[in-house]
Amino acid sequence: MTGTLYGVGLGPGAPDLMTLRAARLIENAKVIAYPTLAGAASFARSIAADLISKDAQEIVMDVPMSVQRAPAQAAYDKGAAQIADALNAGHDVICLCEGDPFFYGSFMYIHARLAKGFTVKVVPGVTSVTACAAEAGRPLVARNERLTVLPGPMDEATLRARIAGAEAVAIMKVGRHLPKIRAVIKDLGLTDCATYVERATLPEQVVAPLSQAPDKAPYFSMILLTKGADPWL
Amino acid sequence: MTGTLYGVGLGPGAPDLMTLRAARLIENAKVIAYPTLAGAASFARSIAADLISKDAQEIVMDVPMSVQRAPAQAAYDKGAAQIADALNAGHDVICLCEGDPFFYGSFMYIHARLAKGFTVKVVPGVTSVTACAAEAGRPLVARNERLTVLPGPMDEATLRARIAGAEAVAIMKVGRHLPKIRAVIKDLGLTDCATYVERATLPEQVVAPLSQAPDKAPYFSMILLTKGADPWL
Repeated sequence: MTGTLYGVGLGPGAPDLMTLRAARLIENAKVIAYPTLAGAASFARSIAADLISKDAQEIVMDVPMSVQRAPAQAAYDKGAAQIADALNAGHDVICLCEGDPFFYGSFMYIHARLAKGFTVKVVPGVTSVTACAAEAGRPLVARNERLTVLPGPMDEATLRARIAGAEAVAIMKVGRHLPKIRAVIKDLGLTDCATYVERATLPEQVVAPLSQAPDKAPYFSMILLTKGADPWL
Repeated sequence: MTGTLYGVGLGPGAPDLMTLRAARLIENAKVIAYPTLAGAASFARSIAADLISKDAQEIVMDVPMSVQRAPAQAAYDKGAAQIADALNAGHDVICLCEGDPFFYGSFMYIHARLAKGFTVKVVPGVTSVTACAAEAGRPLVARNERLTVLPGPMDEATLRARIAGAEAVAIMKVGRHLPKIRAVIKDLGLTDCATYVERATLPEQVVAPLSQAPDKAPYFSMILLTKGADPWL
């Protein structure tokens, strides 16, 4: 009997924003897997740390920092092979993923390699989009409004066109793209609708109007563009 | 001392997809509030039912079925007044909301009425978008892809234009709009990329390629348009 691979979303960062299902799977896990970036501590593991058994086997996929894709792909190839070994030995494997596994989640790299050969179950998690809205106290979308989620690394022209044609917008992975995004939003006259959130739900969280955002943003930061509450709600 | 109003997201339907924070708040709640539609059982309450104390006071906001907005607004006005009374009496109030409170959530109607006068905290929840992707086994967005969330009731021309210009798309609240949406997707040649999901994560869940979707869809149904896994992941 081969084991089941679980892609488990952990939510935005606060450990108690994990789902009950995720917590139960992690508490009972004999084999867990997660990525690290260039040897740094794993954010995903830190969210789940209090629930991980001391006896659990940990498969660490260390992804090197590189603009090339091949080194990261090699790291996921190696991790997927280790996970496959555990599954073939009959163990379930709990793959930890911050946020939601299928929403910009690292689990997709493992899913792409193993979904055809093994039983895979995905446990959805709270995404940073709704966590940022909650922390900012800003409703995202109601009734027949639409929401557009854009990654900050998009080129400036595309970003401008997508924001201009949108209603509510969440711009993910702001990081070093903050000056570009800020300039586009200013050009479009939308600065007063924009809220900046970094490290949502963590103790070091920052929430500010975009006009008062810091000059440097970490990778885990977001800009929300919302029109504010509809007075006719 | 006035109480705090909590808008608590319950996730897509399976009770164990609630967050640990939501579960703790509900277990300890002395006053809970939730909407019902035209006297029917509350979906939100059903998700949380096993955690609600027998001694909890329940504020039920019964929203009448109507194409007019005034009757629903009156129901939320009345509910908000009852919630304000409990807050002014010093009680915290836990307002239950399926999915996420700020993502098409009914809690926004209460937030719009009470956020200026009381302390409000929002507990984000797993949305149906990522729950449907998880159940369908279809990654939504990776790397620099963008996601568009559209409500099914949009008019046909707008829906067509928004889908045509998008990458990954989630169409919410399909319900009686299924024939219109299906026709638009077929016209755009995208039927083979489309997955239909109804009542995600509940025992009666349906997941099917759009070409094999039933003729009638409930309100809690969604169509996901994704390109499938990037072979270069």
